[in-house]
Amino acid sequence: MIAGPCSVESDEQTIATARAVKAAGATALRGGAFKPRTSPYSFQGLKEEGLKILAAAREETGLAVVTEVVAESDVALVARYADVLQIGARNMQNYRLLEAVGAEGKPVLLKRGPSATLDELLLAAEYVLNAGNPQVMLCERGIRTFESHTRYTLPLATVPWLHERTHLPVVVDPSHGTGHTNLVPRMAAAAIAADADGLIVEVHPDPETALSDGYQSLTFAQFAELVQLCQRVAEAVGRKIRANETAMTL
Amino acid sequence: MIAGPCSVESDEQTIATARAVKAAGATALRGGAFKPRTSPYSFQGLKEEGLKILAAAREETGLAVVTEVVAESDVALVARYADVLQIGARNMQNYRLLEAVGAEGKPVLLKRGPSATLDELLLAAEYVLNAGNPQVMLCERGIRTFESHTRYTLPLATVPWLHERTHLPVVVDPSHGTGHTNLVPRMAAAAIAADADGLIVEVHPDPETALSDGYQSLTFAQFAELVQLCQRVAEAVGRKIRANETAMTL
Amino acid sequence: MIAGPCSVESDEQTIATARAVKAAGATALRGGAFKPRTSPYSFQGLKEEGLKILAAAREETGLAVVTEVVAESDVALVARYADVLQIGARNMQNYRLLEAVGAEGKPVLLKRGPSATLDELLLAAEYVLNAGNPQVMLCERGIRTFESHTRYTLPLATVPWLHERTHLPVVVDPSHGTGHTNLVPRMAAAAIAADADGLIVEVHPDPETALSDGYQSLTFAQFAELVQLCQRVAEAVGRKIRANETAMTL
Amino acid sequence: MIAGPCSVESDEQTIATARAVKAAGATALRGGAFKPRTSPYSFQGLKEEGLKILAAAREETGLAVVTEVVAESDVALVARYADVLQIGARNMQNYRLLEAVGAEGKPVLLKRGPSATLDELLLAAEYVLNAGNPQVMLCERGIRTFESHTRYTLPLATVPWLHERTHLPVVVDPSHGTGHTNLVPRMAAAAIAADADGLIVEVHPDPETALSDGYQSLTFAQFAELVQLCQRVAEAVGRKIRANETAMTL
Repeated sequence: MIAGPCSVESDEQTIATARAVKAAGATALRGGAFKPRTSPYSFQGLKEEGLKILAAAREETGLAVVTEVVAESDVALVARYADVLQIGARNMQNYRLLEAVGAEGKPVLLKRGPSATLDELLLAAEYVLNAGNPQVMLCERGIRTFESHTRYTLPLATVPWLHERTHLPVVVDPSHGTGHTNLVPRMAAAAIAADADGLIVEVHPDPETALSDGYQSLTFAQFAELVQLCQRVAEAVGRKIRANETAMTL
Repeated sequence: MIAGPCSVESDEQTIATARAVKAAGATALRGGAFKPRTSPYSFQGLKEEGLKILAAAREETGLAVVTEVVAESDVALVARYADVLQIGARNMQNYRLLEAVGAEGKPVLLKRGPSATLDELLLAAEYVLNAGNPQVMLCERGIRTFESHTRYTLPLATVPWLHERTHLPVVVDPSHGTGHTNLVPRMAAAAIAADADGLIVEVHPDPETALSDGYQSLTFAQFAELVQLCQRVAEAVGRKIRANETAMTL
Repeated sequence: MIAGPCSVESDEQTIATARAVKAAGATALRGGAFKPRTSPYSFQGLKEEGLKILAAAREETGLAVVTEVVAESDVALVARYADVLQIGARNMQNYRLLEAVGAEGKPVLLKRGPSATLDELLLAAEYVLNAGNPQVMLCERGIRTFESHTRYTLPLATVPWLHERTHLPVVVDPSHGTGHTNLVPRMAAAAIAADADGLIVEVHPDPETALSDGYQSLTFAQFAELVQLCQRVAEAVGRKIRANETAMTL
Repeated sequence: MIAGPCSVESDEQTIATARAVKAAGATALRGGAFKPRTSPYSFQGLKEEGLKILAAAREETGLAVVTEVVAESDVALVARYADVLQIGARNMQNYRLLEAVGAEGKPVLLKRGPSATLDELLLAAEYVLNAGNPQVMLCERGIRTFESHTRYTLPLATVPWLHERTHLPVVVDPSHGTGHTNLVPRMAAAAIAADADGLIVEVHPDPETALSDGYQSLTFAQFAELVQLCQRVAEAVGRKIRANETAMTL
């Protein structure tokens, strides 16, 4: 269970979120320091300062840090602070970056591109594996379809389909996958029922003032409820949430 | 929980399936007598003979009968035998047919068209409601996207989205929604976790010899397991499977 | 070249449009009398009165009349007035309707459903052909994709692809295919360059007051320019606009 | 008119193609030296050796060289040999790479990602413009949809839509946009009719033995015919092929 803000905005925001998601049961903290943004005029992240904030939050809470790396030339820097290197959906086929995180050696969370087929996702993972790094988690975060009532369409059949074909763990992102706070908890529960190995969820102390993705972020209380719902579903389908174990091996 | 074969093929096939799904916990029997088929040269269904077989299966098992009606001129005939009139995905915007089943008065199961928006689905339901028939169940059965590893893409966020906007029950069809037997149980469980009010599942005594949709049909044993999995998930998310209640009110 | 209003709204509107499109070079008049509308509360067409208006416009101008039929039970009525029976995109897989227009015998304009594959379109045509009616025109009118700057996405590769596989004429509808008046002329020209056999274009005396589809309708002057542009492109690619010939054989 | 092989495979293949496309009327030569490939086990391009071959072909024919750059760290190297830096569809939102080619200063050909909206394309261009480089050409190369009879769906309404919103030239790639040799010429002609400012077309001396994309490459003779067809259409719609002018200003 990975949770945290879309962007690292400040010391206070990050540490407060880390404490809250830890208390609710999360095992890893997400947060963007290098933000790939559709517009060059949007907030681009705090960069190294953001990484330091994340590392301080780990120090205090013991949560593993998951954060995105957007360029080959940043890999070493990000790897100094992060426990898991995230490859965002826009960079799923940035093969040089995949090779660089493959060579680095830390666990990688590889997000599916919004129009990538699952074969393309598996071959993107192969770029990391082929560089000598076996620790790849695949992440379904929604695809582009004609539907506009959700930000993306979240196709959960991805989870059992991938489980039949690869031993790599499959994480689901119901925040980007729906784009609406009120749809996140149910789709998180559905992902667990579909046999997801983990979840990555956006949480913010005050979603309405978030610098990015506020409309799909949960409050602390909403996240705590989501965790309880997911734990009950995980038990019903006969498993513990495997993300815990993954996180424990970091 | 609605289950049964894609097509009614024979007396034996139908009654055997009815007994098996009843024993496993289903409350309604599905089965196509009038089959809309992509090709005019495919098996088109047993028509009235199929309806009689369904009615006989109801007689014996007490299951409600859900079956598709494909033309305005067949509504009266189908309504004589069926408890629920199904409008298939191809006919979601066949407005004359919607008005006719609206006027008839029996409960209607309205399937979403593969490229229909949810607004279009709600407005299609409005054609039935506006004809004076309030008993409409909406059914998510998957949409057309670029994904080809599944027959359709099954977007479960439909379920909580519709629950926020309408009191009409929402049923999910994981058989058409995935198109692969081995993906059906997990997506059925996910649908329940997403708060679906019911499921409609294809079951066949011998899927490999089915005249249609064998690749997405469950055996009796697979269906029995699916029901148990779904019951555990339903309890975990704090509800009974509401389809039972719907069926009981028929 | 088929042109005319989305809906027949009145005598004056229809006859004025018929005169204008005839003068500009059209050979057939389109206009909806039975309108399938997404909402039951939208204008549903003038029905038989609309058919009479269309027939009167043919009387005066000599244009062939192309109009939609939405139900099996209307086929005989519509066929009394129309020269070409249009099957709309929503009804592409309304097989009973296809069989009925197949049995009737008049030329059929079969529109592609917004998520139909071309195989499904060809098999839908097969329902008409198989009923004994060889006069089927296929119509590309755009598909549902993630693109939202146009109403639909108009995939013109449909045209040469179909020409390789069938002798049936292929008509393109740039009005629905784009949903914006200002994109229609260029996409009409592109359709001709892609080897379309005909075009069907929405034209209205005063698009801003149209009861339906005004945002994608051309004024008379815009349509006259479109015809000239298309004629120059048709010559450049070495052909006359075949729709003329089709119309002549009606 | 930009033409050439998908990949630079050898000296002979490249120079032969350059001579042929020059003779047929092309003004620029395309060819990949750094190839982003879906699988890490596919041919990855000749890299700097490929760039040298392209430069030699320019030397002899006078054609401008258009070639892809896939990583920030390669920009300076590729810019030493190329006249136009191509950003491939996979890298449309690789913002560091966009900033790097923006800072470099050479003209940029920016391909639309297969699920990018046009707003996202314009904002990606903004990353280049914002870095101080005004010479950006936008390229429509097809989007991912449910259609599988073509490799991508080529939505030509992109062209007039972009012309209304930006002064940046719009180039169309009918090779990737269709994925089938036999559909390329008609879609090239349609693109010109839709008001495209240029075309980029894959040409190979012997498509059947090409190391990549042979199924969508034209022979020299097919390309020569395509150019003539496009020139006639360009005249019909009242313009010269503007790509010539763009190329002349390089």
